[in-house]
Amino acid sequence: MFSISEIAEAVQGKIEGDPNLRIKGVCDIQDSQSGYISYILPGKYENYINNTKATALLTSNSIKVDRKDKTLIRVKNPALSFIDIIHMFYPEKKSCGAIHPSAIIAKNVKLGSKVEIAPHTVIENGVKIGDLVRIGAGSFIGSNSEIGNGSSISPNVSIYHDITIGNNCIIDSGTVIGADGYGLISDKNIHYKIPHIGSVSIGNNVWIGSNCSIDRGTISNTIIGSGTKLDNLIHIAHNVIIGKNCLMAAQVGIAGSTNIEDNVTLAGQVGVVGHLTIGKGSIVASKSAVYQSLEPDSFVSGIPARPHKNRLRQDVIINQLPGILNRLRKLEKEFSTI
Amino acid sequence: MFSISEIAEAVQGKIEGDPNLRIKGVCDIQDSQSGYISYILPGKYENYINNTKATALLTSNSIKVDRKDKTLIRVKNPALSFIDIIHMFYPEKKSCGAIHPSAIIAKNVKLGSKVEIAPHTVIENGVKIGDLVRIGAGSFIGSNSEIGNGSSISPNVSIYHDITIGNNCIIDSGTVIGADGYGLISDKNIHYKIPHIGSVSIGNNVWIGSNCSIDRGTISNTIIGSGTKLDNLIHIAHNVIIGKNCLMAAQVGIAGSTNIEDNVTLAGQVGVVGHLTIGKGSIVASKSAVYQSLEPDSFVSGIPARPHKNRLRQDVIINQLPGILNRLRKLEKEFSTI
Amino acid sequence: MFSISEIAEAVQGKIEGDPNLRIKGVCDIQDSQSGYISYILPGKYENYINNTKATALLTSNSIKVDRKDKTLIRVKNPALSFIDIIHMFYPEKKSCGAIHPSAIIAKNVKLGSKVEIAPHTVIENGVKIGDLVRIGAGSFIGSNSEIGNGSSISPNVSIYHDITIGNNCIIDSGTVIGADGYGLISDKNIHYKIPHIGSVSIGNNVWIGSNCSIDRGTISNTIIGSGTKLDNLIHIAHNVIIGKNCLMAAQVGIAGSTNIEDNVTLAGQVGVVGHLTIGKGSIVASKSAVYQSLEPDSFVSGIPARPHKNRLRQDVIINQLPGILNRLRKLEKEFSTI
Repeated sequence: MFSISEIAEAVQGKIEGDPNLRIKGVCDIQDSQSGYISYILPGKYENYINNTKATALLTSNSIKVDRKDKTLIRVKNPALSFIDIIHMFYPEKKSCGAIHPSAIIAKNVKLGSKVEIAPHTVIENGVKIGDLVRIGAGSFIGSNSEIGNGSSISPNVSIYHDITIGNNCIIDSGTVIGADGYGLISDKNIHYKIPHIGSVSIGNNVWIGSNCSIDRGTISNTIIGSGTKLDNLIHIAHNVIIGKNCLMAAQVGIAGSTNIEDNVTLAGQVGVVGHLTIGKGSIVASKSAVYQSLEPDSFVSGIPARPHKNRLRQDVIINQLPGILNRLRKLEKEFSTI
Repeated sequence: MFSISEIAEAVQGKIEGDPNLRIKGVCDIQDSQSGYISYILPGKYENYINNTKATALLTSNSIKVDRKDKTLIRVKNPALSFIDIIHMFYPEKKSCGAIHPSAIIAKNVKLGSKVEIAPHTVIENGVKIGDLVRIGAGSFIGSNSEIGNGSSISPNVSIYHDITIGNNCIIDSGTVIGADGYGLISDKNIHYKIPHIGSVSIGNNVWIGSNCSIDRGTISNTIIGSGTKLDNLIHIAHNVIIGKNCLMAAQVGIAGSTNIEDNVTLAGQVGVVGHLTIGKGSIVASKSAVYQSLEPDSFVSGIPARPHKNRLRQDVIINQLPGILNRLRKLEKEFSTI
Repeated sequence: MFSISEIAEAVQGKIEGDPNLRIKGVCDIQDSQSGYISYILPGKYENYINNTKATALLTSNSIKVDRKDKTLIRVKNPALSFIDIIHMFYPEKKSCGAIHPSAIIAKNVKLGSKVEIAPHTVIENGVKIGDLVRIGAGSFIGSNSEIGNGSSISPNVSIYHDITIGNNCIIDSGTVIGADGYGLISDKNIHYKIPHIGSVSIGNNVWIGSNCSIDRGTISNTIIGSGTKLDNLIHIAHNVIIGKNCLMAAQVGIAGSTNIEDNVTLAGQVGVVGHLTIGKGSIVASKSAVYQSLEPDSFVSGIPARPHKNRLRQDVIINQLPGILNRLRKLEKEFSTI
């Protein structure tokens, strides 16, 4: 339990109401509980103000709240500050610094300080692990791979050899980093696998969700830039280069050697073919297939992906096609009777 | 080996032929073998009657079978009864009740009776496991999670902390339950991860296929209702609520906070965006993208998803577009010469 | 380091330049380094000739290279020969023949010669493993499964019981082979799981990428033919039969009982519904959904998949729809004023 004044201090907020009120925890604005704090954003959740059972509300300076029974904390960016409040009640799990005796760790592995290694992990020769890193149960770290300070590897992750992962990264369960890319040379219908001697290089503050597949480069590296966040079940092919602070929703697939520049957003189930450049700041709507490089700040959708405005207009007309065909038939009939 | 009369008794069927015939096992109607039993449904497999080598056939009361050399067992629902016959020949694997010494089980774990725990599993603090549960090799069960009676967890499954799984559930290999959902707050192009303090709650008789990713809720829970069956490689985002007895084929993705009501069927590779309600009994055809909530008993298809009948009509016309354009050109030319 | 003459001899190539030049390794044609060898194909990478820093170039007989400072090795198929050169510098990892003491291997397992079994693996009763096989850390091999000579199973792979894998196969991490297929019998909205007593049979020289799900057959087997190569995150349903030397890019899904004949190529994110036959040599473009069987050597695209030429034509017209609608409106207006 924290008091309103403790919470307000942590987020540098302005209190409207009782600063001594004790708050039990955080809650959802809809699925709300008395004694808890929730949050309201400008244009989001405002219509829940009248019904929420939350005792306190974190909100912005601009929102009017006509509920005398609620205590408010006003901040500049309520969504961002709410993260801090969640962390007050639920402190982030830190490394316990214990190495489980069942972990198989090769002799020439370099471990930083306060590394936590869970049971049944396997860490091969030449691996370097930074300070405060956590390796989850059953995970595999291949030879000569490096994991930076503060990164967290969930259970049952497979990291092949010679992979580099930066600081403060999160890799969720089931994700596979560094398997050979799908590179084949075909001769008379027989397909020969190209040995992949490149690697995967992942920056800092990268989050990779569960069950993703990030392939290693053929000769050069597959690269994921700092601050980029990947959802689940995403495929990143060999030699793909992803910039900084990109967002990719679940089940996206990027084919080989494509370059995704900084701040690109790919919505769910998007596919991008190989050897393209997706210009920085571009947005690709869900389920689209991108077959051509995109200029910076593009907003495209559809299969094949086209400027979203055009797509919407085309789609409205596709929906009217039966009527349009009837109009054409009518014209033909009328014309034939002239 | 069972006799026809033993089999007929088990499924309460009516015999036409020799009740003492010995049957060696079950077979496919096409890839069939003498001495075995197969099945025929009304409107399905009937055209294989003349060619099947199966000695006995499970079928319904309505189907005519003009093969004197076959012994028949007639039942109300042959497909359902065939499941029972398969189980006669191949009894379901039950828990052996053994706990492998290599399993790492925290001290304050509650284990029901006859729990089977395979090698190299990890079971953390506060976990509760019901009677007759089986935990496969290399699986991880995070702290305070609960698994109900008779459930079966395959090898290499990752279940994070505080997850609830009901009775008689099946979770296939590679599936990850309870990783943080893809919730981010962005400020000046930097994306901050929202800590997820919600959980995942899974009902009874739920089947989740292999390599699925089921994310935990942000503050409330992600919920999967009893009797729902998921195929492989499915993504269920944070705060999704799935009703009872839903069906989702492989590679479906559901974005955050969407509500899938009871008895909904989503075919393969369907995507549903966030914050929608898919009314009960609705069917979404494969590869569709659903961008709007659906009334109960909808049947939609396409990208964006529309009523299936309309989609089919539109699609027929799309296929005729080159011809339609030619007709328009012809009209324009003729008109210009008036 | 190898000399040009050693390399040329290994690939039976013709040298143009200094045969005694020492080469340090292989490099990319773009991201190139002095002292290294790269390659150029007819019509591919030719425009990099002027800028590459590579000292030596493997190329075909037909390509003109106007760089006196480069040493050339000319061969019939440079891409294929480059694989051999990579293997010279990076010999393929062979089995070390060691069985880690933490592996749990049932008593009646048959192991070939020089089998390498990594830590924390589990190998159940009746498994047969051929010569020179490598089993990665944390992998599970279910009872009575067989793995042929020279095959390599990466870490954290789950192979259920009674699966057959041929010689020289590669299975990447996170892949699940042999979970029950998504077979259900529904009665009054309740879905009953069909027990799957079939298996999965995988030929020789098959490569399955990471995080794939290959389901076992219901009564007959799911089959993957020799020489077929699968990328990542692919779903192969129960009773699917895949021929020889097929290619499937990432995130493809094949529904139940479909027959993919030899030499078929499915591009990324393709879906194929159940009970179809995809004729040999067919190509399905990325993101397509195939709803009808295809004749041999088809080339289709789109949702639903149609002959690619027709699809392209339709798509050009879809892009012109707003203009076409305006032309129709103009005609209607003009006609109404006659």
